[in-house]
Amino acid sequence: MIYSDEYFMQQALKEAELAFEAEEVPVGAVVVMNQKIIARGHNQVELLKDSTAHAEILALTSAYSKLGTKYLPDATLYVTLEPCLMCAGALYWSKIGRIVYGASDDKNGYHKHLHSESAANAPFHPKTELVGGILAEECAWLMKSFFKTRR
Amino acid sequence: MIYSDEYFMQQALKEAELAFEAEEVPVGAVVVMNQKIIARGHNQVELLKDSTAHAEILALTSAYSKLGTKYLPDATLYVTLEPCLMCAGALYWSKIGRIVYGASDDKNGYHKHLHSESAANAPFHPKTELVGGILAEECAWLMKSFFKTRR
Repeated sequence: MIYSDEYFMQQALKEAELAFEAEEVPVGAVVVMNQKIIARGHNQVELLKDSTAHAEILALTSAYSKLGTKYLPDATLYVTLEPCLMCAGALYWSKIGRIVYGASDDKNGYHKHLHSESAANAPFHPKTELVGGILAEECAWLMKSFFKTRR
Repeated sequence: MIYSDEYFMQQALKEAELAFEAEEVPVGAVVVMNQKIIARGHNQVELLKDSTAHAEILALTSAYSKLGTKYLPDATLYVTLEPCLMCAGALYWSKIGRIVYGASDDKNGYHKHLHSESAANAPFHPKTELVGGILAEECAWLMKSFFKTRR
């Protein structure tokens, strides 16, 4: 059985729900290799008092630690929200094979800063495949619910 | 006595030299508050097998850990090389007061990806002051020496 992108995005959403329950901005990520989840992460900025502790960074460092490697060309990262500039930069360095994200992020997404002449999938590694919009509504709904309770 | 930017950049260079000796790309950083160094970091990508382990990230997380805070509005980060996109993003989230860097980095510096209509100090926080070119030659020389031995 081959699992779909939606299946793994559901797993990333489960991570995002853990963040939500912990009163963190609800973003979750999983790293998948050969159809298996090898690392998970959810936003822990408040818990760790560390503004670099985004879901993607925690999932990437967990994957590096598990595999003992600093590159992930054969892996896919699923994340519920369009990566910010920091996470996009971290994903560039990872040389990850694929990035699949859920909801777009007009405020803090990496798209905002790029110039139009950039390569198609800049700032990511040229070999990285990029897919957006998987379970976008569910991913966005979690974010909206979170910020609604904060106002 | 007030220490100069050059003084603290020398301290960042000492960190870069530690990286050089450990056969890591020689970039170093220090975080300064009230004229005191509160955190240090140097590139440990190879040691940690973690491509997010740049000098700036390690220095920032060390500062967060020491202060128990996720923002650094009263701090200055000194780093020997122009930050990459990942580190620029991390510095944005830190709301750091000042960033002082040494050598420019035409290959991987954050400048490369920004569109020309970006705000003057984008992608950093609007309140972050940015200074480049402090001890630029010394900082660049260390990088050149490193890559010369690698060829």
